[in-house]
Amino acid sequence: MNKKFAKESYTEMNELVLPNDTNTFGNLMGGRLLYWMDICSAMAAQKHSNSPVVTVSVDNVSFKRSIKLGEVVTIQAKVSRAFSSSMEVRMEIFAHNLPEGTRIKSNEAYYTFVAIDENTKPRKVAELIPESEEEIKLFDEALQRRELRLILAGKMEVKDAKSIKSLISAMKTV
Amino acid sequence: MNKKFAKESYTEMNELVLPNDTNTFGNLMGGRLLYWMDICSAMAAQKHSNSPVVTVSVDNVSFKRSIKLGEVVTIQAKVSRAFSSSMEVRMEIFAHNLPEGTRIKSNEAYYTFVAIDENTKPRKVAELIPESEEEIKLFDEALQRRELRLILAGKMEVKDAKSIKSLISAMKTV
Amino acid sequence: MNKKFAKESYTEMNELVLPNDTNTFGNLMGGRLLYWMDICSAMAAQKHSNSPVVTVSVDNVSFKRSIKLGEVVTIQAKVSRAFSSSMEVRMEIFAHNLPEGTRIKSNEAYYTFVAIDENTKPRKVAELIPESEEEIKLFDEALQRRELRLILAGKMEVKDAKSIKSLISAMKTV
Amino acid sequence: MNKKFAKESYTEMNELVLPNDTNTFGNLMGGRLLYWMDICSAMAAQKHSNSPVVTVSVDNVSFKRSIKLGEVVTIQAKVSRAFSSSMEVRMEIFAHNLPEGTRIKSNEAYYTFVAIDENTKPRKVAELIPESEEEIKLFDEALQRRELRLILAGKMEVKDAKSIKSLISAMKTV
Amino acid sequence: MNKKFAKESYTEMNELVLPNDTNTFGNLMGGRLLYWMDICSAMAAQKHSNSPVVTVSVDNVSFKRSIKLGEVVTIQAKVSRAFSSSMEVRMEIFAHNLPEGTRIKSNEAYYTFVAIDENTKPRKVAELIPESEEEIKLFDEALQRRELRLILAGKMEVKDAKSIKSLISAMKTV
Amino acid sequence: MNKKFAKESYTEMNELVLPNDTNTFGNLMGGRLLYWMDICSAMAAQKHSNSPVVTVSVDNVSFKRSIKLGEVVTIQAKVSRAFSSSMEVRMEIFAHNLPEGTRIKSNEAYYTFVAIDENTKPRKVAELIPESEEEIKLFDEALQRRELRLILAGKMEVKDAKSIKSLISAMKTV
Repeated sequence: MNKKFAKESYTEMNELVLPNDTNTFGNLMGGRLLYWMDICSAMAAQKHSNSPVVTVSVDNVSFKRSIKLGEVVTIQAKVSRAFSSSMEVRMEIFAHNLPEGTRIKSNEAYYTFVAIDENTKPRKVAELIPESEEEIKLFDEALQRRELRLILAGKMEVKDAKSIKSLISAMKTV
Repeated sequence: MNKKFAKESYTEMNELVLPNDTNTFGNLMGGRLLYWMDICSAMAAQKHSNSPVVTVSVDNVSFKRSIKLGEVVTIQAKVSRAFSSSMEVRMEIFAHNLPEGTRIKSNEAYYTFVAIDENTKPRKVAELIPESEEEIKLFDEALQRRELRLILAGKMEVKDAKSIKSLISAMKTV
Repeated sequence: MNKKFAKESYTEMNELVLPNDTNTFGNLMGGRLLYWMDICSAMAAQKHSNSPVVTVSVDNVSFKRSIKLGEVVTIQAKVSRAFSSSMEVRMEIFAHNLPEGTRIKSNEAYYTFVAIDENTKPRKVAELIPESEEEIKLFDEALQRRELRLILAGKMEVKDAKSIKSLISAMKTV
Repeated sequence: MNKKFAKESYTEMNELVLPNDTNTFGNLMGGRLLYWMDICSAMAAQKHSNSPVVTVSVDNVSFKRSIKLGEVVTIQAKVSRAFSSSMEVRMEIFAHNLPEGTRIKSNEAYYTFVAIDENTKPRKVAELIPESEEEIKLFDEALQRRELRLILAGKMEVKDAKSIKSLISAMKTV
Repeated sequence: MNKKFAKESYTEMNELVLPNDTNTFGNLMGGRLLYWMDICSAMAAQKHSNSPVVTVSVDNVSFKRSIKLGEVVTIQAKVSRAFSSSMEVRMEIFAHNLPEGTRIKSNEAYYTFVAIDENTKPRKVAELIPESEEEIKLFDEALQRRELRLILAGKMEVKDAKSIKSLISAMKTV
Repeated sequence: MNKKFAKESYTEMNELVLPNDTNTFGNLMGGRLLYWMDICSAMAAQKHSNSPVVTVSVDNVSFKRSIKLGEVVTIQAKVSRAFSSSMEVRMEIFAHNLPEGTRIKSNEAYYTFVAIDENTKPRKVAELIPESEEEIKLFDEALQRRELRLILAGKMEVKDAKSIKSLISAMKTV
């Protein structure tokens, strides 16, 4: 299986917030942002795997700042780690007020995808090579996030979660 | 502040999967489901708080089963616990094939909302009273989920997360 | 052919009124409600017939109360009577203002569907068994509504409409 | 109050049937057609009344022929009669297959609108002058349809429905 | 190959401007109008060619007047000239304020389509016969517009553009 | 008035082609692409002008390659020249097949916008400074395109179009 650099999967989406995307306060509804984030991160996962993909999980997403009608939502997505047939994609989301020239970070999130073949069965994906300092940090932490997802989905027991266990050990002194 | 029963916030949404909701395999895209889940759980939170609400976080959502074009997605939402001005809403999602008469559980998820006043500032919400065995279980576990969210959002330190700490203590023997 | 209870087809839809659903006064447009009612009643007919269905007629629908942007439309649908291959579905529509905690009945309507097979030909459906007092009343009156529909669609002559004729006889004293 | 000719309100809408308008058989869903019919007939009522309008009722609509993905739906609307502040609009709907050059009548329907002022209160509309033979026929029969609507909406008693009563008298010999 | 009159392709579309079609000033966005114009002119080209069509070019479109939320956009399209397998469609666009009874011309534009067969290969279309004075003028000028399009698309050299060359000759005295 | 570099306005949009964006051959409809292009180029013009903008014209756009359902449309936009209150935006459009890893240029286009103030009146914009060889070429040619637009819109006479006149002079030898 070949290897690919993290940056090769980089995908940026810019979406204008229209009336139907907003609540009665004129702010972007969380659900619309979750929808765009799914499209954008799926594109990044497709670039890495050269394959159709399906969403398998969404990690804790927190919404820190309201985004207004008429603003532009910028979503930047990049695969942070590839496992056998799955890929974790990290996103950073920004709210742009273009007339005012401001750009404020709204939130971050992780979505996970599985590459599928023509029978919708999982297929192997390329190994991901992180290069920058941030890519390496995200790559290393991805293991803990993955074990957490598997535990939460009931697919792994805590005793088998090596990465989480070492985290817990570090916490024992707390 | 008054109190309300969990069941008072119960909300059910049934949505038909249309062509534009699907990927090239004819399966519901994850992002569309996340969008519907946001609308449905926001309704439950509005019922409990009698107030407009904004999404503040989405917990680990995992997608276990693909849902097909023409099937009906049933989302059942109920507030699982109310905190000062925030509410955790739990959802169960089912895929209905009405012609075949089948109904299969697709996934579960937690979304969290904050009630806001006319100036979009957080406002207090009613206390939630769980009644059934399941409601009480979800209510009790909500504290751990909330501390986990606050830690992940960088708003709480592990040493102050009482509920998580007792969980960790229980894990020390692992 | 098997029999099914009216309540087995019960379907509820809850839809949030978004900006694009409204006219320039911020009220839900009638056409959008007619669209949602079609989806909801089709689900009820599919549940009863375990079959794909097509809309064949819409009876007199009257709109009594305007529904506002940001309110929730609740549509409750249940098959009121099944004929050979067709089903009449009755709906009650409510406007919910969740922040204010109000729920007002907006209107009622009847849509009729035909169950179709894989060649889009009509196929037989289960007989409907009404149980509650209201279900029995709706079941009995359905015959008159059906004859009225057939006359209006030019598919039945007044002289063959037994149920309507007895209604007319009753009116002769008017 | 001024008078206006029926033909002055004539409005034609042509809509292409796109994937999201269709069911799993690739046929136009009834609800989408009901939505377009509402928009088109509202335009005709606005032309007649020079006023915003709201939908007040939809009469028996029957769907006689399925319309396919990629076909064009032509809706022709014209006010058939104006009452104090309400207008009945009659529509004819055609399914166009442009590549094949065919045009088949799909169905007819009546929608009723009320003209409203800036406070959303009903306001008087111009009297309608029918000219052609068909316009005169539709104008005359409109009285019966209106009484039927009022009776069905519980706003008129059968004994006060003069036009219906003469219809019933004619039926007594049946 | 048969011949068809220009008027046989006439198509009119009337669209209500809804909230999601507008910018933050409540005016119709240019892109939405370009989308509707594409649908409407494609219908005209399909009528002329009795064939599916694909858009191949859009000529200089200028937007002279803003169109408001709640107004109706009327698009009138007619094939202005047919070439071997392509058709130029001319449109006039009007903004209707129905409550105020005003109708103002907004802009004009030309879109060009190619008729395609079942393998999406270009196929011959009927010759177009212009009748009215305006149709003849548009037909004659279409040659210059076509050469201009081919030059701009890099498919024709200026020296081969006979119609443009005579236009340039006429300009030499400028 | 300040000056800004061309690259400061660079905007990229990536859109997934969904079923409702396609014709019956499963290819992206031209009108949907024209809509996305309008949104993307408006963002670039807003970045340059730090102001709301309105579309004033669309130049000759030609569609050279069909884009398929499930592919990703990449639109890259950058202001090519600013005039008093208007800005010409140049776009390059690519069709991405992510599973196959291919990216093919689909077409180019120019859209022109005017910056507006809070009363929707035109307002001055920053001067544009081209830097790269390509930016300088596009900047220089923009004058000819602008004169051509003004002539086509009937706002300039050929004798006043200095840039076009020198082009015509160069053509005299043709």
